[in-house]
Amino acid sequence: MPLNALQDQLSFLREIDRLKSVVRQSPLLDKSRNENSAEHSWHLGLYALVLAEYANGTVDINRVTKMLLLHDIVEIDVGDYPIHGGSSAELQAEQEGQAAARIFGLLPTQQGDAFLSLWQEFERAESDDAKFAKALDRFQPLLINVFTDGGTWNQNGVSMEQVFSRYGPAIKRGAPALWDVCEEWVTQHFSNRTTATPQQIEN
Amino acid sequence: MPLNALQDQLSFLREIDRLKSVVRQSPLLDKSRNENSAEHSWHLGLYALVLAEYANGTVDINRVTKMLLLHDIVEIDVGDYPIHGGSSAELQAEQEGQAAARIFGLLPTQQGDAFLSLWQEFERAESDDAKFAKALDRFQPLLINVFTDGGTWNQNGVSMEQVFSRYGPAIKRGAPALWDVCEEWVTQHFSNRTTATPQQIEN
Repeated sequence: MPLNALQDQLSFLREIDRLKSVVRQSPLLDKSRNENSAEHSWHLGLYALVLAEYANGTVDINRVTKMLLLHDIVEIDVGDYPIHGGSSAELQAEQEGQAAARIFGLLPTQQGDAFLSLWQEFERAESDDAKFAKALDRFQPLLINVFTDGGTWNQNGVSMEQVFSRYGPAIKRGAPALWDVCEEWVTQHFSNRTTATPQQIEN
Repeated sequence: MPLNALQDQLSFLREIDRLKSVVRQSPLLDKSRNENSAEHSWHLGLYALVLAEYANGTVDINRVTKMLLLHDIVEIDVGDYPIHGGSSAELQAEQEGQAAARIFGLLPTQQGDAFLSLWQEFERAESDDAKFAKALDRFQPLLINVFTDGGTWNQNGVSMEQVFSRYGPAIKRGAPALWDVCEEWVTQHFSNRTTATPQQIEN
């Protein structure tokens, strides 16, 4: 048994426990608390397995699932960059790249390189697999906002146009059929809010 | 686009959000709170991907990963049956079977049947894939207890012999090389406790 390899693998599995403490902006659907990045990644793994048929192009759903299980691990070092935060994309990319090198570097070299390479493919969002993974990573929080009557959109004063521009391109590119549904939901959501009384909006 | 199918799939994905609120007995490694079943399932997915080489027999690691992502979904209806709880295995199996039928039944028929069948395979623990998945589902909480200096073993007054009998068979069967390491850790852990002073034990 390659005992040193196993020790490195256990160090990695131990380290990534910390992703359970990275809190995202999105709430759970029952609004009892905010979601963390580990359970978000679990949910996305199941989004991939359940919604595979809506992917654009030809995807290997096992690679997509794996990509989604590890896509947020860098947040252990840099935290969650919220979609409505207006942060610098360059700074984020640099910090996340360093985090990926450190954390996947805990694994035995060959395995760590394979994980790092898959994470980089996700970030580049060029392959069909990565495009679908990115689409789901946008689709899930959009769903949360629709199902919680506005969620982070309300908190951040996000307009319908901003929803379209921040979620639309990634979802449309990786899963156009899912975007068709999103467009309906989002239009409906903002149309309800426009016609609601101020008291309804406060609630 | 099969809109009815998509609606059923989204109902399922919405329903399983509740797994994030099922609290397990095991703590996070930093002991800040207990783990929930959704993030536990995420962690196990990564255990599978990282530790695939230690599986006994021939496994399809993608099936194992999928199995682990959905293995605890039944807990949405029946909660987590703790390993040290002394509960009735028959009652648990009956309740979990009903939960699986209800929750996977939210999906379009063919997809729901495939998920149910994979969950049943995990529960039967007869195939190489299921044996490895079961081994990891025992290995991860054992690791937590070792890394948190006793965790749920202390809380439940669990002896070394009970650790061997409750974790050993499943881990040995699915991942014998991992059990070799566990045996060392567990023996070391209980030997430290036996020789510690009462004050050290309290701490």
